[in-house]
Amino acid sequence: MKGIRKITPYIPGKQPNFADMIKINTNENAFPPSPKVKEALAHFSTNQLKLYSSLTNESLTTALAEKFQLKPKNFLIGNGSDEVLAFCFLAFFNSDFPVLFPDITYGFYKVWGELFHIPFEEIPLDADFQIDFSDYNRKNGGIILTNPNAPTGDYHTLSEMKDFLKKHSDEIVVVDEAYIDFGGESLAPLVNEFDNLIVVQTFSKAAALAGLRVGYAVGNAELISILNAIKSSFNPYSVDILSEKLATAAVKDEEYYKKINAEICQTREYFTEELAKLGFQTVPSKANFILTTHPERSMKKLFEELTNQHIFVRYFDKPQRLASFLRITIGTREEMEVVLNAIKKLS
Amino acid sequence: MKGIRKITPYIPGKQPNFADMIKINTNENAFPPSPKVKEALAHFSTNQLKLYSSLTNESLTTALAEKFQLKPKNFLIGNGSDEVLAFCFLAFFNSDFPVLFPDITYGFYKVWGELFHIPFEEIPLDADFQIDFSDYNRKNGGIILTNPNAPTGDYHTLSEMKDFLKKHSDEIVVVDEAYIDFGGESLAPLVNEFDNLIVVQTFSKAAALAGLRVGYAVGNAELISILNAIKSSFNPYSVDILSEKLATAAVKDEEYYKKINAEICQTREYFTEELAKLGFQTVPSKANFILTTHPERSMKKLFEELTNQHIFVRYFDKPQRLASFLRITIGTREEMEVVLNAIKKLS
Repeated sequence: MKGIRKITPYIPGKQPNFADMIKINTNENAFPPSPKVKEALAHFSTNQLKLYSSLTNESLTTALAEKFQLKPKNFLIGNGSDEVLAFCFLAFFNSDFPVLFPDITYGFYKVWGELFHIPFEEIPLDADFQIDFSDYNRKNGGIILTNPNAPTGDYHTLSEMKDFLKKHSDEIVVVDEAYIDFGGESLAPLVNEFDNLIVVQTFSKAAALAGLRVGYAVGNAELISILNAIKSSFNPYSVDILSEKLATAAVKDEEYYKKINAEICQTREYFTEELAKLGFQTVPSKANFILTTHPERSMKKLFEELTNQHIFVRYFDKPQRLASFLRITIGTREEMEVVLNAIKKLS
Repeated sequence: MKGIRKITPYIPGKQPNFADMIKINTNENAFPPSPKVKEALAHFSTNQLKLYSSLTNESLTTALAEKFQLKPKNFLIGNGSDEVLAFCFLAFFNSDFPVLFPDITYGFYKVWGELFHIPFEEIPLDADFQIDFSDYNRKNGGIILTNPNAPTGDYHTLSEMKDFLKKHSDEIVVVDEAYIDFGGESLAPLVNEFDNLIVVQTFSKAAALAGLRVGYAVGNAELISILNAIKSSFNPYSVDILSEKLATAAVKDEEYYKKINAEICQTREYFTEELAKLGFQTVPSKANFILTTHPERSMKKLFEELTNQHIFVRYFDKPQRLASFLRITIGTREEMEVVLNAIKKLS
């Protein structure tokens, strides 16, 4: 058969399903979503589902506008930040020059580049897994950064990011803030100050709604209108009625989320310190995961041993530099105590 | 700013929202979804939403496999048939020769062609809005047909479609069967007989779940694996947990859907006959809508007058040939009586 595409897809973390498992491999939240989400679901009638979902997602963009002190037209809602990021590639990266991103970052950037035939260049992180901003001073067709970065957890402050945006004022800079609510400060309120900035956020991590598939872009109205044109050229109704309704309920319960995510940050510090006592070396993280290694232990072996005990963490075969590390999502304090005990016993 | 894409998006039908409206403009089902969908929702705990949705959509592919007497590996689930069709363009239409489709068909095919820089050629329908299959005997990079066609409702029988597939055995033929359950017979059970065939169906029309965003492709395992690679390269989790669960419940209530859709077909025949009494000429339809015109009346004017009464039908400015027609979704018998009365009074 002619015309069939050959492609190497993104390989997501596994989604095991055991009653006794500790699932800390795909950076889901340790806690359930807000009780307000449950309440919204209880009031939902399935009869509404016979009609199409919203084209404009007005209820959610209005709630987000209030949260960030912006306007609804500053938001584009999509089916998870993955869809929103894919739209960003289609909308903003149309150039003969390569899109720049770190060699170690969200593995999907490369896949979208390949899928859409967009040239890209991976800029190596330094030896400490840090981004060196000066490496980005070269001809490019746009830049995409994850802040905090994944799977390292490394974070750049607002003032560092602002300097970077100023230096690249003629280039679109997409900042993927999937993990920003675990100790970072978002650039979203600044989208009208920087006309080259698109911020992408998700309900999958801090809002504990990975299974709902809602993400969004924040940007000035002009850039958002271009993203909207791309969405309308691909799948205009990609956010279903239930997802929009439940995500909107979540936005309105900031108090609950501040509480659970502060607890995750505390557990991250506790877990990192306990690992240090066992000789582990961990990249400083502002995300709900850590990247850790041990000078004397095989992380691949530890990964396999933990998997046997239904403790699911993430191991990356490649790139080579990551093969001596584990990425571990921060679960509840109780879960991380179980994990620590398992690691101790396995040594 | 460099690198920004210029694109003309697909313009979907409007989604008005009035308590008193008769919404027959976007081919939604006249009836609510199955009571089994309501039941599935009542048993759902929002705590599940903290985890990612399924990568394989096993519960839904298993239910569909049972329905069509195929295997789960013959199905790819996506976020509405729009997403699935977009994946088909990316997966199967990679050629320097143009993809062929009718000039009057689902308006999105052209938009995906443009979005993905895929060459395409629109083959004119004949004077009676019929597809002439012999027009497709030319060098091509794949073919996509809607059966029944939209917005005409024109339907090709199984044996006509089989002949067509045999004549194009070296080319991928995607058959969009969004409206097949309103009197047509699906090609889906034949996907292992024709290795060039991909059938696309949706839960938005016959299953009365437009707001849920679930669609699927049916094909031989090899073609489906390629679609899966594309999905995994774009947005691997595009079907959320709730959508998969509720769609699966719907598949398991064939009895309910047979009943409501038979009623819609009856109402379609009634409505068409009544329109004929008023001098309207209607393209014979096997879909849940009809395309109709009147030799002496302006359809644009009628569209505007009905809109004023909150009766929402679809009017297409272009192509020119459609500008003297209205596309009217078949609502309940009661709704169509109101519509008929309104049309009578406006004449």
